[in-house]
Amino acid sequence: MKKKKVSIIGAGHVGASTAQLLAHSGISDIVLFDIVDGMPKGKALDLSEACPLWNSASSVTGTSDYAETAGSDVIVVTAGIARKPGMSRDDLLKTNAEVVSAVGRGIAAGSPDAVIIAVTNPMDVMAHLLFKTTGFPHHRVMGMGGVLDAARFSTFVAWELNVSPGVVNSVILGGHGDQMVPMPRFTTVNGVPVTELISSDRIDALVERTRGGGAEIVSLLKTGSAYYAPAAATFQMIKAVLFDEKRPLPAACYLTGQYGIDGLYVGVPAILGASGVEKIITLTLNEKEREAFAKSAGAVAGLVKILNI
Amino acid sequence: MKKKKVSIIGAGHVGASTAQLLAHSGISDIVLFDIVDGMPKGKALDLSEACPLWNSASSVTGTSDYAETAGSDVIVVTAGIARKPGMSRDDLLKTNAEVVSAVGRGIAAGSPDAVIIAVTNPMDVMAHLLFKTTGFPHHRVMGMGGVLDAARFSTFVAWELNVSPGVVNSVILGGHGDQMVPMPRFTTVNGVPVTELISSDRIDALVERTRGGGAEIVSLLKTGSAYYAPAAATFQMIKAVLFDEKRPLPAACYLTGQYGIDGLYVGVPAILGASGVEKIITLTLNEKEREAFAKSAGAVAGLVKILNI
Amino acid sequence: MKKKKVSIIGAGHVGASTAQLLAHSGISDIVLFDIVDGMPKGKALDLSEACPLWNSASSVTGTSDYAETAGSDVIVVTAGIARKPGMSRDDLLKTNAEVVSAVGRGIAAGSPDAVIIAVTNPMDVMAHLLFKTTGFPHHRVMGMGGVLDAARFSTFVAWELNVSPGVVNSVILGGHGDQMVPMPRFTTVNGVPVTELISSDRIDALVERTRGGGAEIVSLLKTGSAYYAPAAATFQMIKAVLFDEKRPLPAACYLTGQYGIDGLYVGVPAILGASGVEKIITLTLNEKEREAFAKSAGAVAGLVKILNI
Amino acid sequence: MKKKKVSIIGAGHVGASTAQLLAHSGISDIVLFDIVDGMPKGKALDLSEACPLWNSASSVTGTSDYAETAGSDVIVVTAGIARKPGMSRDDLLKTNAEVVSAVGRGIAAGSPDAVIIAVTNPMDVMAHLLFKTTGFPHHRVMGMGGVLDAARFSTFVAWELNVSPGVVNSVILGGHGDQMVPMPRFTTVNGVPVTELISSDRIDALVERTRGGGAEIVSLLKTGSAYYAPAAATFQMIKAVLFDEKRPLPAACYLTGQYGIDGLYVGVPAILGASGVEKIITLTLNEKEREAFAKSAGAVAGLVKILNI
Repeated sequence: MKKKKVSIIGAGHVGASTAQLLAHSGISDIVLFDIVDGMPKGKALDLSEACPLWNSASSVTGTSDYAETAGSDVIVVTAGIARKPGMSRDDLLKTNAEVVSAVGRGIAAGSPDAVIIAVTNPMDVMAHLLFKTTGFPHHRVMGMGGVLDAARFSTFVAWELNVSPGVVNSVILGGHGDQMVPMPRFTTVNGVPVTELISSDRIDALVERTRGGGAEIVSLLKTGSAYYAPAAATFQMIKAVLFDEKRPLPAACYLTGQYGIDGLYVGVPAILGASGVEKIITLTLNEKEREAFAKSAGAVAGLVKILNI
Repeated sequence: MKKKKVSIIGAGHVGASTAQLLAHSGISDIVLFDIVDGMPKGKALDLSEACPLWNSASSVTGTSDYAETAGSDVIVVTAGIARKPGMSRDDLLKTNAEVVSAVGRGIAAGSPDAVIIAVTNPMDVMAHLLFKTTGFPHHRVMGMGGVLDAARFSTFVAWELNVSPGVVNSVILGGHGDQMVPMPRFTTVNGVPVTELISSDRIDALVERTRGGGAEIVSLLKTGSAYYAPAAATFQMIKAVLFDEKRPLPAACYLTGQYGIDGLYVGVPAILGASGVEKIITLTLNEKEREAFAKSAGAVAGLVKILNI
Repeated sequence: MKKKKVSIIGAGHVGASTAQLLAHSGISDIVLFDIVDGMPKGKALDLSEACPLWNSASSVTGTSDYAETAGSDVIVVTAGIARKPGMSRDDLLKTNAEVVSAVGRGIAAGSPDAVIIAVTNPMDVMAHLLFKTTGFPHHRVMGMGGVLDAARFSTFVAWELNVSPGVVNSVILGGHGDQMVPMPRFTTVNGVPVTELISSDRIDALVERTRGGGAEIVSLLKTGSAYYAPAAATFQMIKAVLFDEKRPLPAACYLTGQYGIDGLYVGVPAILGASGVEKIITLTLNEKEREAFAKSAGAVAGLVKILNI
Repeated sequence: MKKKKVSIIGAGHVGASTAQLLAHSGISDIVLFDIVDGMPKGKALDLSEACPLWNSASSVTGTSDYAETAGSDVIVVTAGIARKPGMSRDDLLKTNAEVVSAVGRGIAAGSPDAVIIAVTNPMDVMAHLLFKTTGFPHHRVMGMGGVLDAARFSTFVAWELNVSPGVVNSVILGGHGDQMVPMPRFTTVNGVPVTELISSDRIDALVERTRGGGAEIVSLLKTGSAYYAPAAATFQMIKAVLFDEKRPLPAACYLTGQYGIDGLYVGVPAILGASGVEKIITLTLNEKEREAFAKSAGAVAGLVKILNI
């Protein structure tokens, strides 16, 4: 019986925090890869030294050599530069495209059966790029974004209502970025749509705050961007795959006609399991939602076009 | 019934990582304090947005105002500057003493019943300083260090023997620093002393690596020091207090005659519970160990003298 | 700082399984009370011997003496006879009313600030009885039932759709018994109402199976009734109180005008926290739902009348 | 990627409680087998209905058909009759040998790569029987007993010293039964041998209580025997295998010369991992220990001889 193995490409805050959640849970061995010399080894050593305290039998390896990622069950790609204050997610496009293409070429041969989760922004586009550069079937390549956006919206709803955030279930469609499409009528508190609990003005304000959720943290931290919630979101997707959970989560998936879109990665609810994206859930949208979704998808398509992929 | 509250002073990597473990576990509300503007709020917001994914009902507050720490059950002090490459733990002394004295004055009145855990280095001395500046009984002020050193030694022993690190129990005495006193004959793997499992040459090498465990990570990271294992160690101490675990752990405790020392904080095994340090465990040392312990305690005493406390 | 304490009255399968979940989690000390001699001590000893393996510092005490429950934060009442094959929940009424009245008198003085959770069936009525016999404010006495019924409905929905059961959020109103009122339009899978995912015929079948969920297990076990899911449901309520989670859960609450009912315990969604039932959530019901709810409440009222409370 | 699968043969209290721990953790799918009609399905259904509350994606299947166990990674054998008051473990021998032989024949073909854990008593002998009837290599068949005995001894030591039971590490050799060989000099509290902490008279009393640990619970329960701690012990072994933990645990292993014994299952410390028993740890025994061990092994050999295996 083979032990599960998860490789994380990019040992910055998001990557290392994802590794921390894995090491803490003990559910897999972990390879933390970064081209920076020493740093991935330092973080891996620090995490290894926490394992006795977590009663975890995970091994955590830091490396700058793709060969050590071979045989991974899941590969998370966080490599790339972080968004800086004032920078839009899209500004990152070209730099990160080069980084991520190199990653795709680096990991594909060693882990031919892996499920890949793109976290680097703009992650819809980076998922597309990893799909192309690895040559993997599209159901085994997805992007993280919706789970994070949904967690943020859930947090703001929970605060508005003074309830535990864990009971708010949020649904968000579209690209991870300024054009995300929160779906309040499918966002529920213990089954009750928030549209019945919160005035539409306040919902609009919460949606607006969610849309700017990444930027809000950048403006507070000043010298960095969010990583705890992004890592928690990524971990939830990894766990859905490793444990074959059949868990419906919002993810950037390659659409083949659903929602009227073909050949593009866009955020939609999907069932995640051992094979990656096992089923895309098609919600019936109303006119306004359809427009917002199309606009969001259009933005992603524009970026894909720029990269010529 | 009052909810548990833990305040963390200093929102750098160690402080924020400790807050992450608390928020993830959901066992208390958390206040993350830092004098830097915005940053503690940013990290607290990021952690809050992860809570729905962890199904945690912890509230996480970022602040620069001591008033928000009022009513804490446990206060962790990580404030101070971090050790930089080439800097000894002791170089940090004076700067951190000023920072930590201010913290002691800031927290004492609002949380008169709290248990305080000093993490700032040199932490034996900082514990002493917090004991003085808060005026708390000494059993409610302790220093973190031994749990971390022990976790590192356990990791290296586990690697040497290819066993799960969680089953290695290490005992370390003395100050957290170059003069720590690992106790291999009390360090066991499933009950068997490592002295029966590993040659004395190799044990010496593992002890040496442990002694330099912090520096090893600094040299790999280049721009920072360890935080995952330090936070995990701190969390274990917090949990022992919050859940009144009566858990024997190595901690910097105020000795009143034990081990031949009076009126000084030094690392010894102690039973931690709701009242803080509930009992100090007195091991019978052999001649060599006694010498090493005395030397280690002497080093702490020297620092305390420099600070005139 | 006082350690949390939970007492469980009745050490049968449901009571002991609830104690197991508490001991496993380590979040409180546990007193397992039963009038049967020896048995509560035997189960408590067995649980205590598992604690080293769970790394739990919970103490577990078995007793037949109410004095040992003193100072409890939460008291769970499972005492009473179990439903046997062919027996309706209501047949249990009179026997269990006597048992539970004695319990109420036994626990009230020693734990004047406790939150009480009635599990004994018919639990809406038993909650009423405990409210009367303890003289506690009604917000500190509630009944378990809705959480269990909702978990069953979620399970059947998850199987129908082949998704992870954890993502189905079910809402159920009314008495725990043949007249429970499942609310499919508030029952959601990742935010999408099941009414959009499952045909109304199949929903009716799943509702019917939920209604008979207890009986289905009785008919399979032949010599007993369900206890794993009932204990898991009870544990979730205990945790909501101990950690002051502000978690919306269905519970039997004392209504004072909500849903058009006054002075009766009926199952409704409520926010549970440190004070017990902190807020009752009022859903807007349609005509059919209102009728079903009234009928269900009427059945509870009938039982209360029989007992003359 | 295949999901982990654990089958449990025998759905009595120990088997079902082991299934509960697996379902609660979500780390595998579970098949609960029993020849009794309906009962395994009833318990599996009850456990399934708890899964939404545990946020677990485990599927739990009850069955009386060995075919459903096919493809298991681990198979736990608890089938057999339970020890009744006054009955020695050895009285159970012949009845359980027949049951367990049938189980061995039932499971071998469908799960040719499984690791088997015998729990049925006398479990050293039942492990031997499963080794023979399945034809599996001996490292993939082991018996549970030492982990349970050690947990009991740890509990009594923790109570004696008023420390958290999780920090006591106990080592026990020999057969699970009246002739177990507790090893106090390898039993440590945070690394300190209990021989330094507790008088030898009291240690003898704790050893005696441990030896009679099963009987003590039988005498309290009157109508049954222990199951919570036995299930917790079994779960720890399963986890060591599923997560390839390389965890040293006491287990009944097939000796091939170690401790001077050849061709017999006896309880010894061993490293458990994905391949089952990956390494047997040979402790150096003193004269008295050697005698006790030989006597214990002799008792097992006697039973094996009776069964002619």
